[in-house]
Amino acid sequence: MALLFCTFRPSVALPSRFFAGQRRSITIKQLEAAKNDRERVVILGSGWAGYNLARSLNPKKFQTVVISPRSYFVFTPLLASTSVGTLEFRTALEPVRSRGSKYEYIQGRADAVDFGKKEIMVRETVRDPNQGLLGVRAGEVKDERPLEMRIEASRGSLFSMHYDKLVISVGSYSQTFGIPGVKENAFFLKDVQDARKIRNKLLSCFETAALPTTPVALKKQLLNFAIVGGGPTGIEFSGELKDIFEDDMSRLYPQLAEHVKITVYDVADKILPMFDEKLAGYALEHIAKGVTVKTSHRIKELRRGFPNIEGVGDFHDDVKASGFTLSLENGHQSEVGCGFVVWSTGLMSNPFVAKALSSSFTAPASCVRLLSNIDDSPESSADWEVQKHPRTGSIVTDDYLRVQLGSSASHSEPQPAAILRDVFALGDCAVIDGTQYPSTAQVAAQKAKWLAKKLNKGDINTQGFSFMSQGIMAYIGRMNAIVQMDKGSLSGRAAWMMWRGAYLVKSISWRNRLLIPMYWTINWIFGRDISRF
Amino acid sequence: MALLFCTFRPSVALPSRFFAGQRRSITIKQLEAAKNDRERVVILGSGWAGYNLARSLNPKKFQTVVISPRSYFVFTPLLASTSVGTLEFRTALEPVRSRGSKYEYIQGRADAVDFGKKEIMVRETVRDPNQGLLGVRAGEVKDERPLEMRIEASRGSLFSMHYDKLVISVGSYSQTFGIPGVKENAFFLKDVQDARKIRNKLLSCFETAALPTTPVALKKQLLNFAIVGGGPTGIEFSGELKDIFEDDMSRLYPQLAEHVKITVYDVADKILPMFDEKLAGYALEHIAKGVTVKTSHRIKELRRGFPNIEGVGDFHDDVKASGFTLSLENGHQSEVGCGFVVWSTGLMSNPFVAKALSSSFTAPASCVRLLSNIDDSPESSADWEVQKHPRTGSIVTDDYLRVQLGSSASHSEPQPAAILRDVFALGDCAVIDGTQYPSTAQVAAQKAKWLAKKLNKGDINTQGFSFMSQGIMAYIGRMNAIVQMDKGSLSGRAAWMMWRGAYLVKSISWRNRLLIPMYWTINWIFGRDISRF
Repeated sequence: MALLFCTFRPSVALPSRFFAGQRRSITIKQLEAAKNDRERVVILGSGWAGYNLARSLNPKKFQTVVISPRSYFVFTPLLASTSVGTLEFRTALEPVRSRGSKYEYIQGRADAVDFGKKEIMVRETVRDPNQGLLGVRAGEVKDERPLEMRIEASRGSLFSMHYDKLVISVGSYSQTFGIPGVKENAFFLKDVQDARKIRNKLLSCFETAALPTTPVALKKQLLNFAIVGGGPTGIEFSGELKDIFEDDMSRLYPQLAEHVKITVYDVADKILPMFDEKLAGYALEHIAKGVTVKTSHRIKELRRGFPNIEGVGDFHDDVKASGFTLSLENGHQSEVGCGFVVWSTGLMSNPFVAKALSSSFTAPASCVRLLSNIDDSPESSADWEVQKHPRTGSIVTDDYLRVQLGSSASHSEPQPAAILRDVFALGDCAVIDGTQYPSTAQVAAQKAKWLAKKLNKGDINTQGFSFMSQGIMAYIGRMNAIVQMDKGSLSGRAAWMMWRGAYLVKSISWRNRLLIPMYWTINWIFGRDISRF
Repeated sequence: MALLFCTFRPSVALPSRFFAGQRRSITIKQLEAAKNDRERVVILGSGWAGYNLARSLNPKKFQTVVISPRSYFVFTPLLASTSVGTLEFRTALEPVRSRGSKYEYIQGRADAVDFGKKEIMVRETVRDPNQGLLGVRAGEVKDERPLEMRIEASRGSLFSMHYDKLVISVGSYSQTFGIPGVKENAFFLKDVQDARKIRNKLLSCFETAALPTTPVALKKQLLNFAIVGGGPTGIEFSGELKDIFEDDMSRLYPQLAEHVKITVYDVADKILPMFDEKLAGYALEHIAKGVTVKTSHRIKELRRGFPNIEGVGDFHDDVKASGFTLSLENGHQSEVGCGFVVWSTGLMSNPFVAKALSSSFTAPASCVRLLSNIDDSPESSADWEVQKHPRTGSIVTDDYLRVQLGSSASHSEPQPAAILRDVFALGDCAVIDGTQYPSTAQVAAQKAKWLAKKLNKGDINTQGFSFMSQGIMAYIGRMNAIVQMDKGSLSGRAAWMMWRGAYLVKSISWRNRLLIPMYWTINWIFGRDISRF
């Protein structure tokens, strides 16, 4: 039996006892063998940046290996639609492995990088029970022990891999600003399991409210739905929520219609700040029929369980525990009971970026290019640090998406001292030095397209990346949308048709291009599916 | 606030302290108010019997209330297709609440019945984390305390309801014959979450086997799939499994194709015993290309974790723990490691039937009709017992689907002493005295249709139910099926088209009649979706 294996000894600089006596599959050898004379590009993440890049790299020139904890790409603009059943979940997904794909895929996440040796340490996550959840909780590095001890504890799932080029496109997590209870109790809209949780919870709230034993005061709280964040995601979700209530729930639960309430809270004094005032005003007026917008409200806490309600005894403890209490401040304090709270405000660093890329390291001159405008350049073997954006914590890159380095000696120095050779960062986890491009799918996809073109041609240094905005849009419910482009803006039914058309065209597979209009039509005719499982 | 509620005092014979001080919603009053002069038919369960009956009862004559832990009906013949992604899960579901439905629905399960007072005790199950799982574990009454204590412990979710007519169609659970570890470790194919678990586990086994660190010996065990039970469900599932391997997995994981193995085990000496020998022989020969059938094998145990494999160290403990070991006996003992074991053999009583209906009770003469052929009939206030089938534990009914009673005094007496008035039992939980009708969807649906017709007409006593077999069929993979009818039998591609046609026609909603062929076509062209979440 032992003849079937070879002893594979990874070359990463970890104490050899971690690998002593272990036998590895020949598959990693097969990967080496299949490489031939190609360069290996390791892409971390399968979001807008990573997935688009993997699909565009020339397989004759590069052996591309995608490493991602998600075995699929999420078409995020349609996630809100799937969370209420306007679309089926899989219509917003593309499996990373597909019949035509020319890259390798490993389900896992990067745990550590050795930039000097060009090695990454991968932790396989195939059986991770949290996969598909991209709220703040999922994939969190809760383990605060030193790296070596962590490796010792779970060495079975760790292995190292050499790269010629590394692309960091691990995305970001939801920002909860340290507000108590939000991490634990809010619902997010970042990944498909998040959408699935919302759909199930929404239907469960209605079914609980429909029980003959549920008092009216509890019905009102179960059917009170809060959204925190007045950006496009929050507003689109409120529009979708309004749609399912008006189209479906009002017919299926007619006796509950009077109790339903949707509220959007934002700490700022207006919603949709990225749209011009006329469009934002139009949207506000449109969604007002069914959605209450409360600006200048600060969230103080989100805790499990409804607030105490007069006249509802402990007979209903179980129902009361299933809800949430949102504490608000707007001049004065208040508390509201909600069936659920969807949190869609702000991004924070992925733990990989925040932790694995936070320690200083040494690297040989071959891996680091000193910048010419630095006079007192440190030795190439000096202690380097990945440069991070001071406010967001994102990886800072140059115009060529190459990771910038600071010297840990000159920590207070905002100027980059060098760039890492062959290491790129794009998507929500990265920002180009001096730019203000938004953290959107559009920017991520354009960066991926630019990088693929440059790598395929081999002329990375000729012209840097610049973002060309193709406009922004938001669905606002009842077959209505707003669209803002350089050429002008649009609102109403025509904008909605443009919204649908754009996402249909941008959908990646023909499978989804057929299924999406099919579901739009079927759900329009027959209503949304409310089976809950 | 308190004015909104009324104090509803259920009339079931439970100590009044259980209800003291509790306030109920007015909704149960609304239910009473909406009843008008109609009789209330309470249907327990939303399977083939319950769902079809609810849809067919005349809403002018009856106030129908469906009580079921599942908010949907499962079109069981398509479940195997959904477990590998040939169809999307929801195409095999119909929500109990729909736009056109004329009945009430409460998500819950019956906990107890007072046949004398015509009251059922309902436990709401809206937030039951096990819903959608109909393996043996789900919904099990693990709580062995006396009923009164259980009620005290969770009175918040219990309430009582009066019925004029009661229909018991709670279905059955999978029979595991007390074999150690099966209940805990096997995968079942009874409900949609069961199918979802299989789909995720299947894809997870491939993804684990594809990791560069997985040794060949583990790959072989991860990709060894066992099915216990050579009936139509087991054989159909093996055919679907073969299809996804040949159509999709062999292209997406070409390096793993050589390790895949499917085995069907049965304790009997042949498979598909309900088909004639020629058809069963045809099926056996057809599936043999890809599926190994092992008859006369007895399962001794199913335990978590792979058996010890020479040469695979503790480095892979995590992967080894994710699999299963099946102990077999066939003259000699053997053990095999499997990625999963699907269990599709036999049915056992639902806990409601096994426990709640097992105690003796007294009932006034208005609820019980003594049978004329019993001479020494006990007093109508005597201790009665629901008659159960001695082998299967099913509820025994007469030809009119009415529950038969025995006197607990004459326990050894196989003859029924009386029938319960206005209480019917149908579906997999019931059997007509003296018949051998199989426990199939066809029998359940025909009984429901018969009962609806009789109740709507009000002539329950005129002519008893008799089953008209419309034939049996089974899909056997690679666009091939077998069909056996009174008029003759069919096999091959034509039988497959008949199989698809029959289930498409029998599909209940137009929504699914459109979606099912859409998915058949799209998955045939583009392949099955392997996103796992």
